[in-house]
Amino acid sequence: MNVTLRAAARLAVALAAALAAAAAQPYDGIVKKEVFTLPSYTTVGGKTIKNVRIGYESYGRLNAAKDNVIVVSHFFTGTSHAAGRYAAEDKAPGYWDSIIGAGRPIDTDRFFVIATDTLVNLNTKDKNVTTTGPATINPDTGKPWGLAFPVVSMRDFINVQKALLDSLGIRKIYAAVGASGGAIQSVEWSAAYPEMVDRVIAVIGPGLEIDAYMIGMLNVWALPISMDPKWNNGDYYGKDEPLEGVAQALKIVTLTASGSGALDKRFGRKWAVEGGDPLQGKAYAIEEQFYKTGHARAATVDANHYLYTVKANQLFSVMDRVKSIRAKFLFIPARSDLIFPPALSEKAAATLRAQGNQVELFVIEGDGGHYDGLFQITQADKAIRDFLAR
Amino acid sequence: MNVTLRAAARLAVALAAALAAAAAQPYDGIVKKEVFTLPSYTTVGGKTIKNVRIGYESYGRLNAAKDNVIVVSHFFTGTSHAAGRYAAEDKAPGYWDSIIGAGRPIDTDRFFVIATDTLVNLNTKDKNVTTTGPATINPDTGKPWGLAFPVVSMRDFINVQKALLDSLGIRKIYAAVGASGGAIQSVEWSAAYPEMVDRVIAVIGPGLEIDAYMIGMLNVWALPISMDPKWNNGDYYGKDEPLEGVAQALKIVTLTASGSGALDKRFGRKWAVEGGDPLQGKAYAIEEQFYKTGHARAATVDANHYLYTVKANQLFSVMDRVKSIRAKFLFIPARSDLIFPPALSEKAAATLRAQGNQVELFVIEGDGGHYDGLFQITQADKAIRDFLAR
Repeated sequence: MNVTLRAAARLAVALAAALAAAAAQPYDGIVKKEVFTLPSYTTVGGKTIKNVRIGYESYGRLNAAKDNVIVVSHFFTGTSHAAGRYAAEDKAPGYWDSIIGAGRPIDTDRFFVIATDTLVNLNTKDKNVTTTGPATINPDTGKPWGLAFPVVSMRDFINVQKALLDSLGIRKIYAAVGASGGAIQSVEWSAAYPEMVDRVIAVIGPGLEIDAYMIGMLNVWALPISMDPKWNNGDYYGKDEPLEGVAQALKIVTLTASGSGALDKRFGRKWAVEGGDPLQGKAYAIEEQFYKTGHARAATVDANHYLYTVKANQLFSVMDRVKSIRAKFLFIPARSDLIFPPALSEKAAATLRAQGNQVELFVIEGDGGHYDGLFQITQADKAIRDFLAR
Repeated sequence: MNVTLRAAARLAVALAAALAAAAAQPYDGIVKKEVFTLPSYTTVGGKTIKNVRIGYESYGRLNAAKDNVIVVSHFFTGTSHAAGRYAAEDKAPGYWDSIIGAGRPIDTDRFFVIATDTLVNLNTKDKNVTTTGPATINPDTGKPWGLAFPVVSMRDFINVQKALLDSLGIRKIYAAVGASGGAIQSVEWSAAYPEMVDRVIAVIGPGLEIDAYMIGMLNVWALPISMDPKWNNGDYYGKDEPLEGVAQALKIVTLTASGSGALDKRFGRKWAVEGGDPLQGKAYAIEEQFYKTGHARAATVDANHYLYTVKANQLFSVMDRVKSIRAKFLFIPARSDLIFPPALSEKAAATLRAQGNQVELFVIEGDGGHYDGLFQITQADKAIRDFLAR
């Protein structure tokens, strides 16, 4: 070995040690947003979208066997920021930080947890979100797709996630996990790739399909946008955006996701502004507060992405493929949920048990409604730990 | 007695007999709409409305003591047509015909049942409805009131009903009865005139007040109208009316008043039109059907009256007057009601029992939601009979 080779060898050893040290670095709560690009994706409906990009983040380390993967999918208005902070000074961590981390139920000392932004994610103007949808520039025209963007389904969301996992060499999912729209994606995972998914944790989900009532309610969720003249049949890019419609739409989501008991404690019959005559058309606090938060948030939300997400939710059903599902299930509904009441999870659990799947069910108690699946999730700590230990 | 006087006396006797025969005529299911006029009414908010007119109908006979009166108030989208037919060939009878009639739980052989149209009733263009509200000509201007019409509350609805009863010499109400918004009015009766009301039957009602969640949902019910550009801040009389907003608003009411189980059986995930590609933006049957029925009905509904009825509902609370209520109560919630779930009636029942009122509660079973209070009301036959016998 000559001097040059010996030096190179020493360098290689040092480099390998450094890499090993970096890889061995445990998840410390600081996360980095990454972007996955797919040069071309053909939807279930047969339409091709070029340059599909989605954001993702991960917590914990992928092991050598690549068999310690937990996929976390996000809810309707959510993003891939499921846990941790981008910087130590961030005010709040990701939405499920209470259950994702070292020693927590979704234990980052053991699992490699990966969370992705969906296609047509609402939050197009959030700098930490990367998504592809109607607001994205169509490379073929140089202009935003608008309503020319193909309708996408939950299966499309999952197919793009699958391509990301393929790119990382991952062939097995230890558990697919999510709340609400994330529960929907997790169930869709188990039906789309039955051999790949060992476990599903479906928190505050609709079960195995969106039923008639919820198809109708999703239509109501969309109504303020389609009724806003500025929506202009989806053609508003570079013009005045339908912020009023988006704000009102977000208000409906917030209202229906809240529990009536919690709302009564927080707002009751209080007026938005005290004093004056109640009979002169004053607004109640609950009317004004959710409208204000809707408006504050509307600036980062794309109206068409909202409508496409509504459609993807309405299209969700795995009933025609349920027999192929092999995963074990843990359903975690919330007692006071007005969007997806516990009866829906119970119905899905019964269907899966009847065909031989292993199924657990744990109900989160409280009066916070659908939101209890996010803010009271630690009630399910032991249920999640036990399920992931099986 | 001269011949003329004798003839007059004979005539008087014959007339009295004829009148007695007419009065003795039992209710036979044919009803006549009548109109009550109040030259001037001053609202709880201190505004005066001239020439207030409301429609009403009655079933059965007022007895000599005038103590056999049952007052029936109508729900949000309803009218005073609670029972019977205007003509034998009418397709359908009034909405509660199954419990109002000879030998029925609200027995017209025993009771004088009177049902009134509310102020600001939605159905201004229904020929059988008489109401006063924003669509009414203001005698002082010769033009429709529009949003200059005073905000009215449930207490105002009841005060106008009270004036009607006064005009008939009625001083006692055996029972105030109603479904949904009619339950609200019945409870308001018991708080507004505690000495006058002996019994309340509150079917599918919210209990003693509208809570924060329902204040918010009522705001959502109103949204399609206020977002329709043709609503034009309530100034659309003589112009193109906001029919789209009204249709969408009625769609929301129908959807939320339906039970999710019944909707699943009726619509499931069926498409509005079979064939074609589900991924090309087709509508689901449930989206299209309720929109169509909303549009069909919008032609008889006034948009401003809808908004005023929303406001009257939001304003409802008797909590500041609950201690004055003396009536006995029968609450009849429906198990699958998504608008006013049984827990609300249970809470009201507990409050009233705790202060010493006699309270019964009967739950209608079924999956038809809020509508079970109308279409499954005969489940409560015995509960109503027993309650009215006490």
